[in-house]
Amino acid sequence: MIIEVADRGTIPAVQKVLQGTHEVRKLIFPERFFVACSGDERTIDQSALKKIDGVLNIIDTNQHPYYFASRVFKEKDTIVRVGDVEIGGRRVAMIAGPCAVENLDDTLETAIGLAQTGVKILRGGAFKPRTTPYNFQGLGLAGLKILAEVRRRTGLSVVTEVINPEDVEIAAEYVDMMQVGMFNMTNTPLLKRLGEVGKPVILKRNAYSTLANLLKAAEFIIYNGNPHVILCERGVKTQETATRFTLDVSAVPVLKRLSHLPVIIDPSHAAGHRDLVPILSKCSVVAGADALLIESHVAPERMIKPGDADQALHPTEIQALMKDLQPIAEAVGRTVL
Amino acid sequence: MIIEVADRGTIPAVQKVLQGTHEVRKLIFPERFFVACSGDERTIDQSALKKIDGVLNIIDTNQHPYYFASRVFKEKDTIVRVGDVEIGGRRVAMIAGPCAVENLDDTLETAIGLAQTGVKILRGGAFKPRTTPYNFQGLGLAGLKILAEVRRRTGLSVVTEVINPEDVEIAAEYVDMMQVGMFNMTNTPLLKRLGEVGKPVILKRNAYSTLANLLKAAEFIIYNGNPHVILCERGVKTQETATRFTLDVSAVPVLKRLSHLPVIIDPSHAAGHRDLVPILSKCSVVAGADALLIESHVAPERMIKPGDADQALHPTEIQALMKDLQPIAEAVGRTVL
Amino acid sequence: MIIEVADRGTIPAVQKVLQGTHEVRKLIFPERFFVACSGDERTIDQSALKKIDGVLNIIDTNQHPYYFASRVFKEKDTIVRVGDVEIGGRRVAMIAGPCAVENLDDTLETAIGLAQTGVKILRGGAFKPRTTPYNFQGLGLAGLKILAEVRRRTGLSVVTEVINPEDVEIAAEYVDMMQVGMFNMTNTPLLKRLGEVGKPVILKRNAYSTLANLLKAAEFIIYNGNPHVILCERGVKTQETATRFTLDVSAVPVLKRLSHLPVIIDPSHAAGHRDLVPILSKCSVVAGADALLIESHVAPERMIKPGDADQALHPTEIQALMKDLQPIAEAVGRTVL
Amino acid sequence: MIIEVADRGTIPAVQKVLQGTHEVRKLIFPERFFVACSGDERTIDQSALKKIDGVLNIIDTNQHPYYFASRVFKEKDTIVRVGDVEIGGRRVAMIAGPCAVENLDDTLETAIGLAQTGVKILRGGAFKPRTTPYNFQGLGLAGLKILAEVRRRTGLSVVTEVINPEDVEIAAEYVDMMQVGMFNMTNTPLLKRLGEVGKPVILKRNAYSTLANLLKAAEFIIYNGNPHVILCERGVKTQETATRFTLDVSAVPVLKRLSHLPVIIDPSHAAGHRDLVPILSKCSVVAGADALLIESHVAPERMIKPGDADQALHPTEIQALMKDLQPIAEAVGRTVL
Repeated sequence: MIIEVADRGTIPAVQKVLQGTHEVRKLIFPERFFVACSGDERTIDQSALKKIDGVLNIIDTNQHPYYFASRVFKEKDTIVRVGDVEIGGRRVAMIAGPCAVENLDDTLETAIGLAQTGVKILRGGAFKPRTTPYNFQGLGLAGLKILAEVRRRTGLSVVTEVINPEDVEIAAEYVDMMQVGMFNMTNTPLLKRLGEVGKPVILKRNAYSTLANLLKAAEFIIYNGNPHVILCERGVKTQETATRFTLDVSAVPVLKRLSHLPVIIDPSHAAGHRDLVPILSKCSVVAGADALLIESHVAPERMIKPGDADQALHPTEIQALMKDLQPIAEAVGRTVL
Repeated sequence: MIIEVADRGTIPAVQKVLQGTHEVRKLIFPERFFVACSGDERTIDQSALKKIDGVLNIIDTNQHPYYFASRVFKEKDTIVRVGDVEIGGRRVAMIAGPCAVENLDDTLETAIGLAQTGVKILRGGAFKPRTTPYNFQGLGLAGLKILAEVRRRTGLSVVTEVINPEDVEIAAEYVDMMQVGMFNMTNTPLLKRLGEVGKPVILKRNAYSTLANLLKAAEFIIYNGNPHVILCERGVKTQETATRFTLDVSAVPVLKRLSHLPVIIDPSHAAGHRDLVPILSKCSVVAGADALLIESHVAPERMIKPGDADQALHPTEIQALMKDLQPIAEAVGRTVL
Repeated sequence: MIIEVADRGTIPAVQKVLQGTHEVRKLIFPERFFVACSGDERTIDQSALKKIDGVLNIIDTNQHPYYFASRVFKEKDTIVRVGDVEIGGRRVAMIAGPCAVENLDDTLETAIGLAQTGVKILRGGAFKPRTTPYNFQGLGLAGLKILAEVRRRTGLSVVTEVINPEDVEIAAEYVDMMQVGMFNMTNTPLLKRLGEVGKPVILKRNAYSTLANLLKAAEFIIYNGNPHVILCERGVKTQETATRFTLDVSAVPVLKRLSHLPVIIDPSHAAGHRDLVPILSKCSVVAGADALLIESHVAPERMIKPGDADQALHPTEIQALMKDLQPIAEAVGRTVL
Repeated sequence: MIIEVADRGTIPAVQKVLQGTHEVRKLIFPERFFVACSGDERTIDQSALKKIDGVLNIIDTNQHPYYFASRVFKEKDTIVRVGDVEIGGRRVAMIAGPCAVENLDDTLETAIGLAQTGVKILRGGAFKPRTTPYNFQGLGLAGLKILAEVRRRTGLSVVTEVINPEDVEIAAEYVDMMQVGMFNMTNTPLLKRLGEVGKPVILKRNAYSTLANLLKAAEFIIYNGNPHVILCERGVKTQETATRFTLDVSAVPVLKRLSHLPVIIDPSHAAGHRDLVPILSKCSVVAGADALLIESHVAPERMIKPGDADQALHPTEIQALMKDLQPIAEAVGRTVL
C-alpha cells in the first residue's frame, strides 16, 4: 500500500497506522510525499488512514504494483541525465563499447574511435555474468579503474554492469551509470542496493519476462530511493534460431504507454550477429527508443570470447550507422547527431 | 535430392536412375530444368547420375531443404504480381480489409473506403479457422461471391484465406490471391493443392515456427508447381501479454538473406490492438517489408466477433497511416504512395 | 449456443428461434437431445427460447467452449472401444508400431512381434506430415492396404494418421481408428470429416497448445457427430534440448478433471530417444494414462528416416517394458497385462 | 581448462604454466587433485603442461563445461547428508514446510505435524524473492532464528532459501542446508559464496533453463569448494495455464545420466494447485527423484499471501501422501517410509 500525503508533517501519523506491516518507509519526490509499506496489510485500519488530515490518496499496490514507475504517478516523460547526455529527450543517445573490459589498450582505442563518431557514453563490462566458472569473469576492480582512466582521457561517460550487491558502492565511485543484466532483473538485493546508491541505472528486461515484470523490477529501484531508471529491451527468447533472441520492438510503445521512464534498445544482444544490428537499430529509432546500446570493439579478433566478437561493430561502422539513422530519426521527429 | 539438368532431353535418363525412390517429378522454370525426388534415397546410384551428360548439379536436400525458395537457387528478388500490383518491388504494397466477410454491405463499404486511400488489394475471410465449432466459421462460397462482387465494383484485387484443400480450386475462381493462415503453415495437403493451382499465395509463419520451417513450407508450394509465394511474418508467441504476439521484425532481413521471395508483415495480428498498428507498420517498412497486411473495417462495432474489432483500423486511419509511412519509406529508398 | 431439449419433438421449435445464426444442427446422444448453433448469436431471441416447453438447458458456449467434451455434459468416464480393446477402462492399453509403413515385410514382422507381447493395437503411418517435400511422404493407399493385410494376418487392430480431409473416408475403410497429429489439432476441415465418418480418433495435443485448446479441438469432432475421441499428450515444446519435447504428465489429471474422454500418452515422440521411453511410460501409467502409444520396429536400422529409428523399441523391449509396468500399474489400481 | 594431477606436489608446476590466465585455483577431492583456470586460455603452453610429470589429464572445459558435476568426473552417485538424512540413497527423502516463515507459532505447529509423519527436513523461507517491493520480503534474521528454534524443539533439520551473497554466512549459522531459487540459478556471486561456505545446497532449475545450464550452475558451487549440491526440478514454463508450470519428469533420468548429483523434485511450485501435488509426487518417485520438496502449512488461510496457500498441503495430507507413495516407491526399488 502507498499513501500520498500533502506534506512532511502528515507522514508520522500515517506511519503509525501502518506500523503493523513488515516495513514502512517514506518516499520524497520533488513536492510530493509518500509513505509505503510492504508485507502483511491485514492489520491496517483503513478508516483510521482516511481520517488523517493530509492523506491525499491511498494507492492499492495490488492494482498498481509498479506505481512509481507508472504514468499514473507521473504523466510527463522522465529524462535521465548521464554526464551531459540526456536520455529520454529528442536526441536518441548512442551508447557503445566492448562487451568486456579486457585491457586498457583495446578499451581506450575503442573509446577514442567512438568519441570521434559522436558517441557520448562508453559501455564496458568489469563484472561478467557467465554460465560456467571457466569463462572469463571480468577484471573486477581493475576493470573499473580502466573505465575511469578511459573516461579521464576521452571525456566519455561510462556505464558498467554490476552483478553483486557488494560491488555496487565501489562501482558507483568509478562509473557514471550502472547496468543490470537480464538475469539480474529479478535480483532484488541488487536492485535495492542500486536504489540506495542512487546513480542512473540501465535495467535490462529478462528475455523470458513480461514488460509488466520489468516495470516491477524498476519499482524496486525507485522504491529504494533512486528514480533514475532507464528500461532496456534486448530481445526475448523464442523458437527462432537464426537470431539469438527476437527483438520486441513493441516493447517501446507499450512501455512508453505504461511508464514515464526512458526506454532504450540493445540490438546487438537481440540479434547476436553484427549484420542485423543496423536494421534493428533503425527499427528501434522508429519504435521510439531513447537510446541505442551497441557492442563495439576496434579489433573483435583480439577478444577473449570469440562468440561476442560476432556482435561487435567497429567504431567506423557505428559512424556509418549513425549517418544512416539520421534521416529515419528525422522522419519520426528525433535526431541522432 | 534435386538434379539440375541442361535441357529437357536429359530428364528421362535422370528419372530412370531415381525411379527407386518414392516420388520423382520434373520442375521446369524459365530456362532451367530440374528433376526432384522424395523418399528413400538409399537406392540412388550417384555415380550413374554423375555419368549422365547434361547433369549440371546434384543438390543434397538435407543440406538445402528449401532449395527453390532459397537464394542459392535464385539470387535475384522475386516479384509477385497480383492484378496490377507488384509485391517485392520498390513500392510497399498495402493490403487491407476485414477479418471475415460477414455481408456484402460492410465489405463493400470498407472496400470503397480503402480504394480511396490507394490500397489496391482487399483482404477478407470466407473460410475462418476457429478454435471452437460455435464461432462463426465464415460464409464459404457465399463469401467468395461477395469478394468477387466487391472486386467487380471497386477494381480492387482480392485475397482470401483457404483452410481446406477441397476449397482451393473453387476459391481460385473467385479471388486473385490465396492466403495460408498460421495454423496451416504445415498443412502439406493444402500447400500441395496451392502449388498445383498456381495463383499467388501469402504464406503466414506459424507463431511457434522458425523461419527455416516457413521456408520449407514455401518449398512445398514451389515444388508442387507454383513459384508465386509471398512470405508473411505475423508475430511469434512469447511470454508477453501486453501484445497478443510479438512482432519479429528481424524476420524480414533474415528471410531476405536466405530467400528470393517477397516478405510482408501483418502488424494487426501481431499487436492485437489497433493502437500499436501504426508504429509496427513503420518498423515493418524500415525492416524491409514488401507489403503490409492490415485489418480494416468501416464499423468494427458491427462485427460478429468483438475481439477482432480491437484490431481493425477504419479506412480513414489507413489513409493517415499511409501518409505517415511515406517519409519513413523514402528514408529507406521505398515508397508507399 | 447449445440448447438441451427433453425430446426430439422440441427440436424444430428451437431450430426456428436459432435460424438467424450461421449454422444450426441437432446432436443426438443416447437419451439426450441438443440443438447447437454457430456464428452470429446477436439475432437469437433468448426469451422466445425459454418459453418453449421442453427446453431443459441453455448452454453458453463462451462459458463452455468444449461442452460435449467436458465433465459438465457427462460426468462418467467415456470408454472408447477399438476391436476388442477398451480404452478408458482399468486396463492400460498398449498401442505400438512403426512411425511409417514402409513395406509389408517390416510392418508384418513388427506386428507379429508385438502381437506376441500382448499389444492389441498396431500403429503405422501411411500418410506422413513432413517439413519438406523431399522427405518420404508415406505410401498412401498402398500403406493402408498393408495395414489391412497385417490386421488380417495378425488379428491386431490398426490405427493410422490422416492429414487430408479427402483421405478420411478411404482410410476409414482400411483401419479401425484414425489419428490426428499435433500439427493438425487445429485443422478444422479434417476434424469435421473425422466427426462425420465416426470411427474412433486419437487426437494429439499440439506441442504449443494449452489443454483447453485440445479440448476445443475434440469438441469439433464430437459436434460433427463422433463421440469416440481419445486425447493424447505427446510432449510440449520447451527450452530443453536433451529431450525433443517435454512430456507434460500433469496433462493427464488436468484433462481427466475437465473431460470424460480417455487420455493416452505417446512417450516416444516426447522423449525423442528410446532410452527414456521406459521411464516415461512408467510415469504415464502413474499419472493415469489409459493407453501408451509407443514407436516400435523390428529393425530400426532399415528405416528410411534414421532420426525416427532413435525412438523405436524392438518388440522384445516392449515386452520387457510391459513386465516392468505391471507392478506400478497395480500400485495405482490398474493393469497392463 | 582443468588439469588433473597425481599428487599435491605437482600442483605448483601446473599453476606456473597457467599463470597467464585470469584465475588459477586448486581443487582437492578425496584422493584426487586438480588445478583449474578461467579466462583467457590463449596464453597457455599446452606442450609445457604435457611435459610435467604427474599431469594425468587435461580437460577441455569447452567440451566439459560442468566437469565436476558430471559422471565423467565421478561415476558413482553422490549422497548428500543433511543431519541424519541421506539424499541420494534408496530412501526418497521428504522435505516439507511453509513457503515463508511468518511467525514462530505457525512454523512450529507445522513442524510438529510434519515430524509426526516421518518428514525429517523442514523448509521455510526467511528471505523471499518477490516481484514487487510491496509484497512481504520475509523476516530475514528473525526468520532464521525461528527456524533454529523450531529445529531445537522438533529435531528436524531445516533448509532455507538465500538470495543475497551477504546473507549466506549468517544463514549458514542457523540452518542445515540452503536453497537457491529459480531466479538465482544464474546468480554467480551467490553460487560462489555458497561454494565457499560449504553447507549442502538445493539448486533449483530456472523455469526457462535447460538442464545443461542447471549443471553449469552446480559447477560454480563445486568449483568454489562445495561438492554437496542437490539438483531440483520445479517445473518449466510452457503455454499451459491450467498448471502454473509444467513439471518436467524427464529431467530426473536426464540429469542422472549426465551427473552424479542427487536430483529432487518440487511438485508444489510446478503444479501451483494442491490437488495435483499427490499425483505429481507419485510420478516424481517413479522418475527416480531422491527427495520431494512439498509446501505444507497447518493453516493456509492464515498465510499473508493467499496465492501460496493454494499450493500447501496440511501435515495430515503429507502423511496420507507418504502412505500412498510407498507401494509405488517399492515397485521401483525405493522406499519413502
